Amino acid sequence: MNEVCAKSGGDLVDPLVAEVARLGGLAEAQIADCVDAVTRRDVPLAQALIGRDRKLDQLQADIERRAIDLIATRQLSGRQLRRAVAALKIASNLERCGDLARNIAKRTLALSENEPLTPLTRSIDRMGRLVASRLKDVLDAYTAGELDKAAQVWSRDTEVDEHYNSLFRELLTYMMGDPRTITPGAHLLFIAKNLERIGDHATNIAEIIHFEVTGETDMGDRPKWDALMEKMPAAAKPEN
Amino acid sequence: MNEVCAKSGGDLVDPLVAEVARLGGLAEAQIADCVDAVTRRDVPLAQALIGRDRKLDQLQADIERRAIDLIATRQLSGRQLRRAVAALKIASNLERCGDLARNIAKRTLALSENEPLTPLTRSIDRMGRLVASRLKDVLDAYTAGELDKAAQVWSRDTEVDEHYNSLFRELLTYMMGDPRTITPGAHLLFIAKNLERIGDHATNIAEIIHFEVTGETDMGDRPKWDALMEKMPAAAKPEN
Repeated sequence: MNEVCAKSGGDLVDPLVAEVARLGGLAEAQIADCVDAVTRRDVPLAQALIGRDRKLDQLQADIERRAIDLIATRQLSGRQLRRAVAALKIASNLERCGDLARNIAKRTLALSENEPLTPLTRSIDRMGRLVASRLKDVLDAYTAGELDKAAQVWSRDTEVDEHYNSLFRELLTYMMGDPRTITPGAHLLFIAKNLERIGDHATNIAEIIHFEVTGETDMGDRPKWDALMEKMPAAAKPEN
Repeated sequence: MNEVCAKSGGDLVDPLVAEVARLGGLAEAQIADCVDAVTRRDVPLAQALIGRDRKLDQLQADIERRAIDLIATRQLSGRQLRRAVAALKIASNLERCGDLARNIAKRTLALSENEPLTPLTRSIDRMGRLVASRLKDVLDAYTAGELDKAAQVWSRDTEVDEHYNSLFRELLTYMMGDPRTITPGAHLLFIAKNLERIGDHATNIAEIIHFEVTGETDMGDRPKWDALMEKMPAAAKPEN
């Protein structure tokens, strides 16, 4: 019975994968919008995206329910099982990307009450675009099932970290130079950290794609946080 | 066959639940240690707990594998299925608590290079103990299956937020008063935020226990972030 089920259910997981792709599209849009909102001080955009976050939460809960149902009630083949588990885990990462975008939008509301810190928002914009492109690449890799593309996102993880570290130093320098920038600077610190965490989720998704396709969880070595930290002056270490 | 499986497999999920409880114990210890490390500036303790985090990651991965295997290969009853799904999700929350403790420990290493900010570390200590007690309570509720105790943790979520908001204001005030405190202050901001997020995970776990026992995902209303924010002066809004 196992084999019959496995064969006849060859595309059982496809609708689930399509829903994850849809959630991915929504998360991409939220991230693009939150970066625009913070750089343009666009309060209505920030409010709109905060309102839309609920939709991502609901879609993720729905995907989770459907994935568990599929795993529990169908005799899935090994690959199908990995696809369903991957869908479940990627959806969870995307939902958290949505939360981080919402939190950036909330800080945009607070920032709009202060004077703009233009050079800093430009750095945030650059980091935001980098992170958004990482998420786009990894979602392309997911829908196309391209392992190479996923591995590329994974191996370039340190670029986002380097952006974050440089932004962290830049922000502290500003805050030290002018105490009036301390409150907005603190918000920008958290915004930068949230963007870095979105980059981490893109890396997680790359690892999940690797697991889905190969069945293995280990992707080998890549440049690590510790190695990166050695390059930094002690006082400016942002930690994680 | 379904019914026979359901009956004979009455305690199929028990070993999984025991492993989650074990992971919970490890996470509790990591959180207690990271609070001690930061408040006592204890570098060896911080390094030891950073090293131990790997064990939590491995245990979580193992729980995930076993939970999926159980769901995919056994005919679980509705309650058993919910127990297995809850184990999977609680383990994921605990693993992230471990990550947050590790990150606090890493910042402790950076902080040890600066002058101590004693009154602030005292506030961090208080918040750390509050958050640790929330996690302890919710893990007690999990192993005892006590819905009331879980609901209590869930309904007191805003206490942690209030601690965080007050600490955020206190930190900014310090940083504005003395630019030399800006770098350690920034680390303490992130430490406070990480503690708040550990509190959020305790709340998530309370919601998962509610789902496991009742099969429902909605716990009704509780005091929300927005309501809390109305109480704060605009410039000091910490956002999330």
